[in-house]
Amino acid sequence: MKNPSASMLAIGDELLSGRTRDANMYHLALELTKVGIDLKEVRFVSDLEEEIISAAQQLSKKYDYVFTSGGIGPTHDDITADAIGKAFGLMVKVNIEAKKLLEAHYIEIGVELNEARLRMARTPVGAKLIKNTISAAPGFQVANVFVMAGVPSIFKDMVSSVVKTLKTGNPVLSRNLNVMSGEGNIAEKLKIFAKNNNTLSVGSYPFQLDGKYGTNIVIRGQDANTLDQALSTLSKLFSRNTDEQ
Amino acid sequence: MKNPSASMLAIGDELLSGRTRDANMYHLALELTKVGIDLKEVRFVSDLEEEIISAAQQLSKKYDYVFTSGGIGPTHDDITADAIGKAFGLMVKVNIEAKKLLEAHYIEIGVELNEARLRMARTPVGAKLIKNTISAAPGFQVANVFVMAGVPSIFKDMVSSVVKTLKTGNPVLSRNLNVMSGEGNIAEKLKIFAKNNNTLSVGSYPFQLDGKYGTNIVIRGQDANTLDQALSTLSKLFSRNTDEQ
Repeated sequence: MKNPSASMLAIGDELLSGRTRDANMYHLALELTKVGIDLKEVRFVSDLEEEIISAAQQLSKKYDYVFTSGGIGPTHDDITADAIGKAFGLMVKVNIEAKKLLEAHYIEIGVELNEARLRMARTPVGAKLIKNTISAAPGFQVANVFVMAGVPSIFKDMVSSVVKTLKTGNPVLSRNLNVMSGEGNIAEKLKIFAKNNNTLSVGSYPFQLDGKYGTNIVIRGQDANTLDQALSTLSKLFSRNTDEQ
Repeated sequence: MKNPSASMLAIGDELLSGRTRDANMYHLALELTKVGIDLKEVRFVSDLEEEIISAAQQLSKKYDYVFTSGGIGPTHDDITADAIGKAFGLMVKVNIEAKKLLEAHYIEIGVELNEARLRMARTPVGAKLIKNTISAAPGFQVANVFVMAGVPSIFKDMVSSVVKTLKTGNPVLSRNLNVMSGEGNIAEKLKIFAKNNNTLSVGSYPFQLDGKYGTNIVIRGQDANTLDQALSTLSKLFSRNTDEQ
């Protein structure tokens, strides 16, 4: 059985200008890996409606799940709900359940639910809400697209509630071996190892330690025994770790 | 005159699995912003040839520049050169100039230029090399695509040499105002301000300080005087900063 596939669509000029360093992609990648959903692609786009629409449509067709971040606040630059509505040909209206959440929250803290704040209750018609425990403003799900906040603490909270509702897969497990030898020295043997173990994904990542080159070999797969055996083979293969460059 | 547009294509399973937290996008965003090249889109794809080909072709058509990171080392999982060759219908061969760079480097450090290392001299035919001062292995340019290393120190080095060769634009300047009031309070006024200043981009980003909500307003544009005047208007508009939630 293949694991479900996923993509992320991060929305916001601030991520592309360098004002803000994105933290959500890394978090999502780790959370999805844990539950066996394979994150296959991530796109960052600006606050332009046509870009959001086009990316959302493409990713929604191509992958089992799409997770968006950003653009669901109360200000003029928050246009994600409208863009997702257009992407799926749905009207965007105040969602009664979302409005109730906001009303209760703003009564509790003694703040007026003005027109701007009410914008945060707007969703495409038929959307399912994604609540969060930090702010009252919900995200929402339309088709296979999960629309979430850009603020990292709220994004995390929404991810943890959404993940519970998804069809998950076999978590991809990994084993690591650090070899104190440059990639160029071990590449030939590693290529043969990768061919002989073609049910596993074999990655090779260079590093430097005390001015010497090393290689971090990562093998990934779904079966712990297979991985342990492969790691043992790998360790023997590179047991005479040289520190040649 | 419109600024040149750019996109980034980050390649690597490790970025999508959460093994590695990408650092290159943030660096590229800051460097391009400084020189007036507008980063419009970023895509992260896995080490699958057809994904790299398809993304490279799409981004190359859509934007003035494409910057890739990752997949140009000596191991079996480094397939970027082949993918970019296929994307542009070019044969991939050992580049004589790149081979000379590697030969000189490996003679200097007394290491054999084996077959695996020679892979790093392969480029699509006609590619222009992108040298770096850290490792001997070069990146390369094909059409409007700049193929660079994934290792952050080498990526940075390549970016700094590539940026000097590009057509740049008017650096986008920005001004910031922190208002100690939640987005919901200031959204209506801010929307009108954004309408009245439609040559500027006006972003609104919530933050929390000592448990209170604030809004960071960022205005961006190409003319310092216009920005200063707009900032002054903005400051007056929100001079009575409340700390309502």
